[in-house]
Amino acid sequence: MIRVITLVTDFGLKDAFVGIMKGVILKINPDVEIVDLSHGIAPQDIKEAAFILCSAYQYFPEQTIHVVVVDPGVGTKRRPILARSSSYFFVAPDNGVLGLIYQRERVSVYHITNSKYFLPNVSQTFQGRDIFAPVAAYLSLGISPEEMGAEITDYERGSFPVPRLRDNILWGEIVYIDHFGNLITNIHREVFKKFVGSSKFLISIKDIYLKDISPHYLAVPNKEILAIWGSSNYLEICQSMGSAKMALGASVGDIIKIRRIR
Amino acid sequence: MIRVITLVTDFGLKDAFVGIMKGVILKINPDVEIVDLSHGIAPQDIKEAAFILCSAYQYFPEQTIHVVVVDPGVGTKRRPILARSSSYFFVAPDNGVLGLIYQRERVSVYHITNSKYFLPNVSQTFQGRDIFAPVAAYLSLGISPEEMGAEITDYERGSFPVPRLRDNILWGEIVYIDHFGNLITNIHREVFKKFVGSSKFLISIKDIYLKDISPHYLAVPNKEILAIWGSSNYLEICQSMGSAKMALGASVGDIIKIRRIR
Amino acid sequence: MIRVITLVTDFGLKDAFVGIMKGVILKINPDVEIVDLSHGIAPQDIKEAAFILCSAYQYFPEQTIHVVVVDPGVGTKRRPILARSSSYFFVAPDNGVLGLIYQRERVSVYHITNSKYFLPNVSQTFQGRDIFAPVAAYLSLGISPEEMGAEITDYERGSFPVPRLRDNILWGEIVYIDHFGNLITNIHREVFKKFVGSSKFLISIKDIYLKDISPHYLAVPNKEILAIWGSSNYLEICQSMGSAKMALGASVGDIIKIRRIR
Repeated sequence: MIRVITLVTDFGLKDAFVGIMKGVILKINPDVEIVDLSHGIAPQDIKEAAFILCSAYQYFPEQTIHVVVVDPGVGTKRRPILARSSSYFFVAPDNGVLGLIYQRERVSVYHITNSKYFLPNVSQTFQGRDIFAPVAAYLSLGISPEEMGAEITDYERGSFPVPRLRDNILWGEIVYIDHFGNLITNIHREVFKKFVGSSKFLISIKDIYLKDISPHYLAVPNKEILAIWGSSNYLEICQSMGSAKMALGASVGDIIKIRRIR
Repeated sequence: MIRVITLVTDFGLKDAFVGIMKGVILKINPDVEIVDLSHGIAPQDIKEAAFILCSAYQYFPEQTIHVVVVDPGVGTKRRPILARSSSYFFVAPDNGVLGLIYQRERVSVYHITNSKYFLPNVSQTFQGRDIFAPVAAYLSLGISPEEMGAEITDYERGSFPVPRLRDNILWGEIVYIDHFGNLITNIHREVFKKFVGSSKFLISIKDIYLKDISPHYLAVPNKEILAIWGSSNYLEICQSMGSAKMALGASVGDIIKIRRIR
Repeated sequence: MIRVITLVTDFGLKDAFVGIMKGVILKINPDVEIVDLSHGIAPQDIKEAAFILCSAYQYFPEQTIHVVVVDPGVGTKRRPILARSSSYFFVAPDNGVLGLIYQRERVSVYHITNSKYFLPNVSQTFQGRDIFAPVAAYLSLGISPEEMGAEITDYERGSFPVPRLRDNILWGEIVYIDHFGNLITNIHREVFKKFVGSSKFLISIKDIYLKDISPHYLAVPNKEILAIWGSSNYLEICQSMGSAKMALGASVGDIIKIRRIR
């Protein structure tokens, strides 16, 4: 029995959109547990939604159904899809929002076409309600992906920045900024280790230079900038008891460089 | 068995008010599912709460209990009431917040007076906790409305703007602005159709004129203003990949006009 | 059987931190109900979290497990602890955030050390996920506090402002400002009564003087400032149909004085 459905949307919490999706789900499967991952994705920001989903999905019980509705193309021909890995289901528009999942999980992807599992009278503006919520609910009842539509292979992989090596420098960038103003980069601990080896190193971001990676947020004096391994093992730039975003005026897309030094 | 209680309030999510209501409900009925419709209603904005409730209530399972606590008169003599339609229950203060429900559903309305179903020591400031939450929880256990208080007919209907025909123009107004900055008007698809018939038409709002209604948000070039049938079948004014609210400087109450043209 | 776990954090709702904690909990105990008390605590504001928890905890069913993750010292040697009262469990870092609970409840406190109940590979930055969530989930399955770690008595009591009597004046302060801009003070109804007795009194805050305490928010003309007994029986300063915070430019820590007059 599938017990949990999670939701990621850019709907915010002021309108009733999220509540309506939950109503639709509970009308079909009253026994499922619905968990909000985030409804605060910036409007139509596919990369941010991909990042949030990717940081969270594997902490959920086996067979959890993760639903993402960040859908600038709602009502156009973009396809509703469903991806199945060995442990999870993912339901989303085919716009690249599952791109980071495709990088981490071996999946089968299905184009959802069977309107038997939609609400009657699908609107062109709120398919979270009319398609994604009911499909997730029917999946949770045990309907198979094959029953929802045909398997496809030409799904949209999206484009996500990866660290690059150039001029003997490892170039990464800020891919997400959290609620505390911590700057999460795309440099994974393993990539960093492989590049740096046993050398000393210098991290530079904006006009700040850092020579080490701290064990925790309070390892440096108050209001100092530090680097840390974040909770998903990516390099994070933080301010002790403050917001690195504010302190550095940083934005998603800003460059971070790692140099080896003697 | 009643399984779902929904909540609409103007409490926000920073304080523990909403959590406290959920605690009170779960203490009385641990098996009920509680769904947030919105806690972001502007403080004391009865019309906004009425709109949110109305857009969402019918997507929930039969017998769902919808609770609205937007209650500027808390502690005064305004009555706590309970309305029952064939499919749903509504629990709220008698201040017009159920007005749009009265327009759509045939209801019996009860003045909640039986303090057996309240918390002991009802406060004058937080009756969401002391009256509305426990009453909803006892309803979900199967206590009948008649047991809560006497039926009444002089309940407050509220006042909600309706479209008007004058000088051969259909005059409507913006009744809600959603998280994406879409402007939801009070002009229903059926009203529009009946007025326009097979004529061409011109929609005007602020200093913008529109000659057609688009099938979806991306049907026009980026950042252009468009009209669309929203997810509840009311006319909506939107900006493609943007916020019509920002682009037009629009507010709730702004006028929209429909003219027939040759 | 323990049915309810509540959460108080400073994580906000944009990131997936809260959702991740819920995933961890449901993976261990799929039958528990998780209720959000607040995730809008100001970053690292231990006093605010203590206040929110204290206003809410007793409205929950017996044996509810209240989890607080406001944790500026995450990754340092500050201890994860667990407190048990006759009716509730509390799981939190040992930084004083349970201080108001210690003032109200007789508790046994345990230093959580048994890593059998943690996620593998505890991070230094997100122990809400790695320690607090799984410990709460195992508690809800009936694992005893003694199994989690040894009882301690040197836990951090925190420091919370209390009203003081000086120069025949009762001095209190604003300890919390809610979503409506109501100013909640630390002057409890009983403390006030004991000081004022049957005298007349004068309340002063900023440059406002009030001679009585109103029964409800609408007892004075629109936009006037009033005093009221709040829902937890502390003195509150409010503006009728408005925000006292805005009207008075008030902040947490501002002084309120009560004088007896003839």
